[in-house]
Amino acid sequence: MPAPVPDHGVIPPLCTPLTPGRELDVPSLERLTGFLLDAGVHGLFVTGSTGEVAYLTDDVRHRVLDVVTSVAAGQVPVLAGVVDTTTPRVIAQARAAQAHGADAVVATAPFYAPTAPVEFGTHFRAIRAAVDLPLVAYDIPGSVHAKLPAHTVAELAADGTLDGLKDSSGDLDGLRAVLELVDTTRFRVFTGSETMADVAVFLGAHGLVPGLGNVDPHGYLRLWNAARRDDWAEAATEQRRLRALFRMITVGGADLGPYASAIGAFKHALVARGILAHGTTSLPMHPLGEREQAEVRELLAAAGLSAIHG
Amino acid sequence: MPAPVPDHGVIPPLCTPLTPGRELDVPSLERLTGFLLDAGVHGLFVTGSTGEVAYLTDDVRHRVLDVVTSVAAGQVPVLAGVVDTTTPRVIAQARAAQAHGADAVVATAPFYAPTAPVEFGTHFRAIRAAVDLPLVAYDIPGSVHAKLPAHTVAELAADGTLDGLKDSSGDLDGLRAVLELVDTTRFRVFTGSETMADVAVFLGAHGLVPGLGNVDPHGYLRLWNAARRDDWAEAATEQRRLRALFRMITVGGADLGPYASAIGAFKHALVARGILAHGTTSLPMHPLGEREQAEVRELLAAAGLSAIHG
Amino acid sequence: MPAPVPDHGVIPPLCTPLTPGRELDVPSLERLTGFLLDAGVHGLFVTGSTGEVAYLTDDVRHRVLDVVTSVAAGQVPVLAGVVDTTTPRVIAQARAAQAHGADAVVATAPFYAPTAPVEFGTHFRAIRAAVDLPLVAYDIPGSVHAKLPAHTVAELAADGTLDGLKDSSGDLDGLRAVLELVDTTRFRVFTGSETMADVAVFLGAHGLVPGLGNVDPHGYLRLWNAARRDDWAEAATEQRRLRALFRMITVGGADLGPYASAIGAFKHALVARGILAHGTTSLPMHPLGEREQAEVRELLAAAGLSAIHG
Amino acid sequence: MPAPVPDHGVIPPLCTPLTPGRELDVPSLERLTGFLLDAGVHGLFVTGSTGEVAYLTDDVRHRVLDVVTSVAAGQVPVLAGVVDTTTPRVIAQARAAQAHGADAVVATAPFYAPTAPVEFGTHFRAIRAAVDLPLVAYDIPGSVHAKLPAHTVAELAADGTLDGLKDSSGDLDGLRAVLELVDTTRFRVFTGSETMADVAVFLGAHGLVPGLGNVDPHGYLRLWNAARRDDWAEAATEQRRLRALFRMITVGGADLGPYASAIGAFKHALVARGILAHGTTSLPMHPLGEREQAEVRELLAAAGLSAIHG
Repeated sequence: MPAPVPDHGVIPPLCTPLTPGRELDVPSLERLTGFLLDAGVHGLFVTGSTGEVAYLTDDVRHRVLDVVTSVAAGQVPVLAGVVDTTTPRVIAQARAAQAHGADAVVATAPFYAPTAPVEFGTHFRAIRAAVDLPLVAYDIPGSVHAKLPAHTVAELAADGTLDGLKDSSGDLDGLRAVLELVDTTRFRVFTGSETMADVAVFLGAHGLVPGLGNVDPHGYLRLWNAARRDDWAEAATEQRRLRALFRMITVGGADLGPYASAIGAFKHALVARGILAHGTTSLPMHPLGEREQAEVRELLAAAGLSAIHG
Repeated sequence: MPAPVPDHGVIPPLCTPLTPGRELDVPSLERLTGFLLDAGVHGLFVTGSTGEVAYLTDDVRHRVLDVVTSVAAGQVPVLAGVVDTTTPRVIAQARAAQAHGADAVVATAPFYAPTAPVEFGTHFRAIRAAVDLPLVAYDIPGSVHAKLPAHTVAELAADGTLDGLKDSSGDLDGLRAVLELVDTTRFRVFTGSETMADVAVFLGAHGLVPGLGNVDPHGYLRLWNAARRDDWAEAATEQRRLRALFRMITVGGADLGPYASAIGAFKHALVARGILAHGTTSLPMHPLGEREQAEVRELLAAAGLSAIHG
Repeated sequence: MPAPVPDHGVIPPLCTPLTPGRELDVPSLERLTGFLLDAGVHGLFVTGSTGEVAYLTDDVRHRVLDVVTSVAAGQVPVLAGVVDTTTPRVIAQARAAQAHGADAVVATAPFYAPTAPVEFGTHFRAIRAAVDLPLVAYDIPGSVHAKLPAHTVAELAADGTLDGLKDSSGDLDGLRAVLELVDTTRFRVFTGSETMADVAVFLGAHGLVPGLGNVDPHGYLRLWNAARRDDWAEAATEQRRLRALFRMITVGGADLGPYASAIGAFKHALVARGILAHGTTSLPMHPLGEREQAEVRELLAAAGLSAIHG
Repeated sequence: MPAPVPDHGVIPPLCTPLTPGRELDVPSLERLTGFLLDAGVHGLFVTGSTGEVAYLTDDVRHRVLDVVTSVAAGQVPVLAGVVDTTTPRVIAQARAAQAHGADAVVATAPFYAPTAPVEFGTHFRAIRAAVDLPLVAYDIPGSVHAKLPAHTVAELAADGTLDGLKDSSGDLDGLRAVLELVDTTRFRVFTGSETMADVAVFLGAHGLVPGLGNVDPHGYLRLWNAARRDDWAEAATEQRRLRALFRMITVGGADLGPYASAIGAFKHALVARGILAHGTTSLPMHPLGEREQAEVRELLAAAGLSAIHG
């Protein structure tokens, strides 16, 4: 039986497939979950930023969790992003996630209203007290406009509030500071970086949560395995291939914006690989055009990736 | 019968009173609503930023609207903030607000995920199409980290998507640009500024939505009436008194943070005036201490404000 | 004999004309100075941001001051921007400005290295002690990435360090706070805003330092005079015309960047009006193209401005 | 004879010692230079950010260069920071640096006025054309508020404009992108990071320019040598010791500000080690107090560092 929070490894943040009418595409989500499990991932992270969590109504969030936990069937732990503005709303999301089968919850700092540093501890302690599940802090300053300081994470690790950290800050110096301060025999640190995953493992990170891992889980597993055996040259070679593939996130250019471009690229790559039926993204994101979709396919080909199904 | 969006005037963004256990304090909310109506306000704005909207679960948001629309009983329009991360979630909030009696909805730009400018129009048009209520754009870059450009507001005003703008950006130059571009016979522009309300009216704004208007609605009504009769010296005198009173928002200092300090100050001022039973704020905000509460009372006294009830 | 710091009025920040080879164009600078004096301005501000101060070597800065003080010949005070990174370098600039005839110096907060608030007072006091000229603080957070707090300005006004403030922050609320805190019988507050000049005077500002005042000094003098006699409607009408004219600063678009676009537009407008011989700007700014220059001329025509000379 | 730009290794950015009266302390600068040469550094970088370049008048900058080139006497190359606001002023600084014996110049992007991306190339090409010395781009967004994009650096490397990059951005992902794009047989990439130096070398960086290298050059040389022989565990161990030592930069706390705190700490550490006579920093920086100086000495002791002289 797996630990509720994965001990280590590759834990992709699943895309949320949609139909052209922007309903949840359940068969595609089942295929994606199966594809990742077949590749050998160590955990599944649903309703994260890559999963368009901020665009999903509560009902859709719950159905995503139902589908993925059903397919996973206990083979690996399923973590759920419980992304909402502040403590009371996050607690409500976390309780619902628990009811829908999550093995752990992943919560950001408060956002929308400006947050004082003193509120970080209060926030996570209140979630911890309200929900009986492992709790992972989600450090994503690009979305919440605040950075969790390393000493705050360490304090909340030491007192049992937090069980882990998903670091999507891009701040490797800060990641290293956390790893120096926490008890790494029980606290887990995961990086959200697609492009510096090898460095994160070099610094001691326990796992990878790369959005690009939807598209190429095998690549991240090879990188992970090379790094685990201290074969840094091999890990860097795999990382270099994945860095080139990751350029797909900019195909949409400035007009489409960075997020619509990235999510659209991941989804169209999954269409090209035969996993998703549609590349549809949520409103108000604009879709990739034909030219951008072709660029995604070229990057897949350059990375040596072909269709899995079909 | 009032217009669904107030034509002009003072429309305070109501605080959301809480019990010490952080439940909705319905009697206090009823008293606050009555206090503002008695003062002669032209509209009521519930579940805005001052109303701690980001801290209220959906259920509490709905009950706030039920209470306030019930007390208002059609005397003035009730606008509801439908604050959520992106289009699908805002639409869900807006539909619920309509079901609970809102006369108009007030929606921000998307937040959490970075938003491209091209998405602003898509966002508001989708809300407009989904909900049959007047729609006011809520420009609050301090919370959503994006500024609505004047030309975008003007375009969405011209095509009937937007009926008004609540400008909480602090950018008076931008406010002026909007007023130069829109058809002011039908589109309404409200400022969220407590401290430059006279200037906003001087520039042509149709109304005021000041958080401090919970505490001193009579002051803002005097300012509004002076400005309406072009008595700018009188308006500036009133504004100067209100600017001094507004210093209450910093009583909490850097440790408490700007938002917890401001909301705590408004609520404790309302306690001192006999309107609210408690100064409690939502988690994870920390409360004002005794010293800070005393400073609030001193500022009230200096502004010539006493208890209304009790 | 005029006061060293102008008591009030319109004090344009002079453009620095360059030859096509990017040498100082002395005849054009003489014509520009004469044009502004003939219009009736109350002071002249050289080597400010509009004057490309950050692009001028020390030698060119000194020659600009020599030329302008020579043409002005004591008719109005000449203020010199002494823009450099930190205290020792600003003091060197200020001493040189004094040697070259400046009647007052205008200094920003330190920039390049991050500055702590405690350093603001130390900085201005050291300049004050080193140079026997009136000292005006130049609040320009867009360039120095720090805002001078109102209470700091007030403290430095009260102890005689500062004689005035040039506010190029765009923060009218902060401008108002300064005006509430300082002794306005001796301390002077000038706004750098082109587009909210009427509001600044409404709030009590003593003068205007608009870059667009190079192009249309008569317009700003009409605005100033209307505001001084409390004819706010007339001031707003003039302001509206000037706001439309000010759109010239964006002709260069995103590629050229905001600064190169604005300075290029001012200079080409002055070429069109017959004052400057060339529209050349400093390196590394890119020049306006033919199409952008034509747009500038169209905006001049729409504002009713024609050539003065030639 | 050494290459004009060091091929690789440790190139400390020298502190600029000052007397209590804030004059250049030449004997201390000679001792510091000798200390670093004795330690075996591969180059010397003067008038960088650590050297308080933004606080030094032109005359002091030149004398620093005279002193250091005289002591170095060709043993290792001496690079000079030519930090000024824009192209014409940087060219003047670069010409003076050449006249005073610099082997290479290190120039930032323009600052003060906002810079458009198109101006980066124009800026560096104009410097390249004006000064016959190797040219290193200094990427320091914390000071200039713009990041040099990797593709721009690569383009300027490919056409011979730039000979190297000093990356003080903290963006290791961007550092990696540069290293993937440039011809590393001739273009050199140095990191300014004190705390991620091992990772930078792991990614392919050619050298280290750590401010803390003034205080502990032997530590950075051990780190460098371990990394060069692929002994990453040993490099990480040394890095961990240096990370703990680097905590000295925060001894001054928020009141003193990050820059005054860091420079003060480096200088007082050098006083404690017997290299510098005084810990004086430039105006308007405030000095470290007795307690902060004691903390610096404690961190030195904890890192196993003692006095070299005296």
